[in-house]
Amino acid sequence: MAKEFNTVTLIRKKRNRESLSQDEINYLVQSYTEDSIPDYQMSSFLMASYLNGLNDEEAANLTNAMLHSGIVADLSEVPGKKVDKHSTGGVGDKLSLILAPVVAACGVPVPMISGRGLGHTGGTLDKLESIPGFTVDVDLKRYKEILKKQNLVLVGQTEEIAPADKRLYALRDVTATVESIPLIAGSIMSKKLAEGIDALVLDVKVGSGAFMKKQEDALELAQTLVTIGEKFGKETIAYLTNMDQPLGYAVGNWLEVKESIECLRGEGPKDVIKLVHLLSGTMIYLGDKAESVSEGIEMSRKAIENGSAYQKFLDIVEEQDGDTKVIKNPESYPLAEYSLEVKAKKSGYISDMNTFNLGMAAVELGAGRRAKEDRADPSAGYTLHKKLGNKVAENETIATLFTNKKEKLSTTDEIFLNSISISENRLESGSLIYSRIDKMGIHEYEESELLKS
Amino acid sequence: MAKEFNTVTLIRKKRNRESLSQDEINYLVQSYTEDSIPDYQMSSFLMASYLNGLNDEEAANLTNAMLHSGIVADLSEVPGKKVDKHSTGGVGDKLSLILAPVVAACGVPVPMISGRGLGHTGGTLDKLESIPGFTVDVDLKRYKEILKKQNLVLVGQTEEIAPADKRLYALRDVTATVESIPLIAGSIMSKKLAEGIDALVLDVKVGSGAFMKKQEDALELAQTLVTIGEKFGKETIAYLTNMDQPLGYAVGNWLEVKESIECLRGEGPKDVIKLVHLLSGTMIYLGDKAESVSEGIEMSRKAIENGSAYQKFLDIVEEQDGDTKVIKNPESYPLAEYSLEVKAKKSGYISDMNTFNLGMAAVELGAGRRAKEDRADPSAGYTLHKKLGNKVAENETIATLFTNKKEKLSTTDEIFLNSISISENRLESGSLIYSRIDKMGIHEYEESELLKS
Repeated sequence: MAKEFNTVTLIRKKRNRESLSQDEINYLVQSYTEDSIPDYQMSSFLMASYLNGLNDEEAANLTNAMLHSGIVADLSEVPGKKVDKHSTGGVGDKLSLILAPVVAACGVPVPMISGRGLGHTGGTLDKLESIPGFTVDVDLKRYKEILKKQNLVLVGQTEEIAPADKRLYALRDVTATVESIPLIAGSIMSKKLAEGIDALVLDVKVGSGAFMKKQEDALELAQTLVTIGEKFGKETIAYLTNMDQPLGYAVGNWLEVKESIECLRGEGPKDVIKLVHLLSGTMIYLGDKAESVSEGIEMSRKAIENGSAYQKFLDIVEEQDGDTKVIKNPESYPLAEYSLEVKAKKSGYISDMNTFNLGMAAVELGAGRRAKEDRADPSAGYTLHKKLGNKVAENETIATLFTNKKEKLSTTDEIFLNSISISENRLESGSLIYSRIDKMGIHEYEESELLKS
Repeated sequence: MAKEFNTVTLIRKKRNRESLSQDEINYLVQSYTEDSIPDYQMSSFLMASYLNGLNDEEAANLTNAMLHSGIVADLSEVPGKKVDKHSTGGVGDKLSLILAPVVAACGVPVPMISGRGLGHTGGTLDKLESIPGFTVDVDLKRYKEILKKQNLVLVGQTEEIAPADKRLYALRDVTATVESIPLIAGSIMSKKLAEGIDALVLDVKVGSGAFMKKQEDALELAQTLVTIGEKFGKETIAYLTNMDQPLGYAVGNWLEVKESIECLRGEGPKDVIKLVHLLSGTMIYLGDKAESVSEGIEMSRKAIENGSAYQKFLDIVEEQDGDTKVIKNPESYPLAEYSLEVKAKKSGYISDMNTFNLGMAAVELGAGRRAKEDRADPSAGYTLHKKLGNKVAENETIATLFTNKKEKLSTTDEIFLNSISISENRLESGSLIYSRIDKMGIHEYEESELLKS
C-alpha cells in the first residue's frame, strides 16, 4: 500500500501550483483505483492538473502509478528487443496493420496492444475485427505464446492492463479534462509500457484530422512522451506527421484492411507507403536489426518486395483465428448494401479537407461508435478518389460512400461537400513528415538526411 | 425548469476562461440541486471557477441561482426597511448579539439568520443556544410572526433556504475549492438575500483570526459582496475591520453572551462597543431611521443608555423561549467544571496574538465543533486578561480557561503560550477599522469624517 496522505491537501497543492511527489501521486492513483478516493475529489484534482500542469517528473510518476495499477507483461522469455508503435490517432490511419508484419518479418518482435475507434478517429481493433473470425481478446499467457511463435501479436487491452488509466480516462471524458498534454501522455505511456516493450516509436499526428491541431501542441506532446519513455529506460523516437487529409484513399474498417493488403503486396498509396517505411525502419533500428534508420527503411522495403511481410500478415491472421481467404481474395468480401458517389460541385483543385469532419463522416456511415456499446460496421466507410492538390472536374466523383444505413447517404454526402474545398489554383500542400523528436531534441525532418543517418 | 445545456461544454467554457451566461449558471446550479449533474462534474467546474475566476456578472448570477434554489422570504407584510448584518467570521465576535437588539430598538426590523461555528470561528447560533431554552429552529411563518412582533428575529438557516449553497459548500469543503472570493461571496449573499432584507451591512474581517489574512483579499471580497448586493437592488455597505486579536475579552458561547449583556447594560470592552455603534449606526441609517451614519451611531448610543436595547434583548429571549433569569443574573449560570489560569512566562508587552490558534484553542476546550454532529459546550471557552499592547509581568495571568474536559487544560495552556508573543517594547497596534466599501468605492476610514457624514 502507498503512503497515506490527506486527499484535500494534495488537491490544494496542485491548485496552488506546487509539485507532487512520487508517493503523493501513487497515493492518489492507487486510492482512486481502490475506490477510497471518490470521483468528485479526483475530478477536482484533474481540473487543477489540467489548468496548472504537471511537470515531466510528475507526468512520469503518474505514468508509473497507472502502469503499476495493473499487470506489466514480462516478455523476457521472448528473445530480442521488443518494439511497438503508437499513433495519437487520425483518419484512415491503417499504418499499424502494415508495419507490424513488416517489422516482425524483419526479426523484431512486435507486441502490439491496440484500441478501438475514439471520436472521429478509427481504431486498429475495429479494423482487425472486420476480418471474419479474427480474435483480439486473449489472456496474458496466450499473448506471450503468440508473440513467441509469430514475432507479432495484435490484441486489445485487457482489464488487467492499467485499470487506473481506464477509470481516469472515463472520468476525464465527462469532466472536460481530456485535452491535457501530461494527462494524455500518461495515459498513452502507461498502456504501452504495460505491453512489456523495450523501445517505442510514436506517430504524433498534427492537423485538422488529429487531436492536436497545432504543431506547437503536437511538439509538446511528442516531447513529453519521449521524456517519459526515456525516464523508463525505453528508447523512444517520435515523428510529427501530417493529418491535414486522410491517410491513403480508404477510410472504414474493412476498406482499410483491404488497402493495407495492397500495400503489403507492394502496391498502395504513396503517403501510406512512405510513412510505413519511415516508422518500420525506425522500429527495426530500435530493435537492433539495423545499424541506422535508413538501413531499417531498406529492410522494410525488402520485406514487402520479397513477400515476407505479406506472409507474416497471413500467418498472424491465421494464428488469431482470422479467415485468410478474404485476405487472399479481398474482392470476395461482402460489400455494404448502399453506396453513393460524392460529386464535385465545381471544377478546380482540392485545396482543403476538414479531416475531423471527414472522420465523423465515417462514424456517420457506421464505421465508428457513438457510444461505447455500439458495434462498428465492418463494411461501412468510403474511398476517396481525390486528395489534396488533385485536379477535379465539375461533377467528377470525389469519393464513394458505403453504408448499411440508407438514410445516412444524403447526410454524409452533405458533410463531404461541406468539408472539402475546391479552389481555382493549385496550392502547395504541407509536408507529410514534419520533424523527429528523440532524447537529443527536435530535428527538422529532411528525407535525404535521414537516408544518410 | 432552466434551459438545457451540455454540462461538459459548460465546464470546458470555464476551463477556457470564457464567461457563462445567467441561463448556463442556472442550469448548472438547478441541475446539481436536482441531482441530475453528478458531484464529479460540479467539482471539476468548481476547480475551474476557483482557478479561472468568475466575473462580477457571473458571481451575481451564481448568487441568484443559489438564492432561487430555495424559498426567498417575502417580508412585505412587515413595515419598514429590513436590514441585517453579516460578518465573515472571527474570534470572540459577539457583535450580532448586541447590535441586533440595538437596531431593532431604534425601529429598524432585523431579520437575522445566523450560522454555527466553522473551523476556528464561533457562530451566533451556538452562542444563542447557550441560553437555556432558546429556540433557533422556527419555520417561515413563525419567523415572520416574531419579526413583526419584536422587530427582530434570531434564527438558524432552515433546509428551505438556499439548499444549493448547502450542497455546494459541502462539496467545496472536500475538493479544495473553499477559498475562492466569488464562490464565498455567492454563498454569503444567497443566504442573506433569502432572508427578505432590503439592505445589508457587512463586517469583513482581516487578520490572523480571519479567513482573509491579507487586506487586499479582504478588500476584493468586500467589493464583490457590495457589487452583488447592489446588483440585487439592496443597498450594501461593508467595513474592513481588524481581526488580529479576539474581539473583547470573552471567547466561548455563554462567556460571549455574558459579555454581550454587559455591553447592552452600558459596560463592556471598548473595541466591541466601538464596532457595535459603527455597524448599528450604519444599519439604522440604511433602515431610514437616521439621516446619516453618525446620526445612526448617536441613536445606537442612546438605545444602550436608555435601556431600550437591553429590554429588546430580554424580549427576544423570552419570545424565542429562552430563560431570561440567566440574562438578568448572569452570575447564576453554571460554570464549566475545570478552569486554569494561563500565566506569562516573562514580562513585557503583548505584541502579537495568533488569533487563528486562539480560535482553535476555544474549539479544543469544547466551545466549537470538530465535526458537524458535535455539540458545542455552552460553558467552555476563556476570558482574556490582556490584549495587544497591554503590559504584563512575569507569572501574571494572561487568560483563564474554562472546560468540562480536564485533559484539555494543559494542551490549551500550551497553545496559548505559543500563540501570544511578549516583547520588551510596546508596539503600535493596528487600527480597529480600516476602510468602508460601498457602491461609490473604497473609503479610508477616519472616525472624525464619519461622525460628520
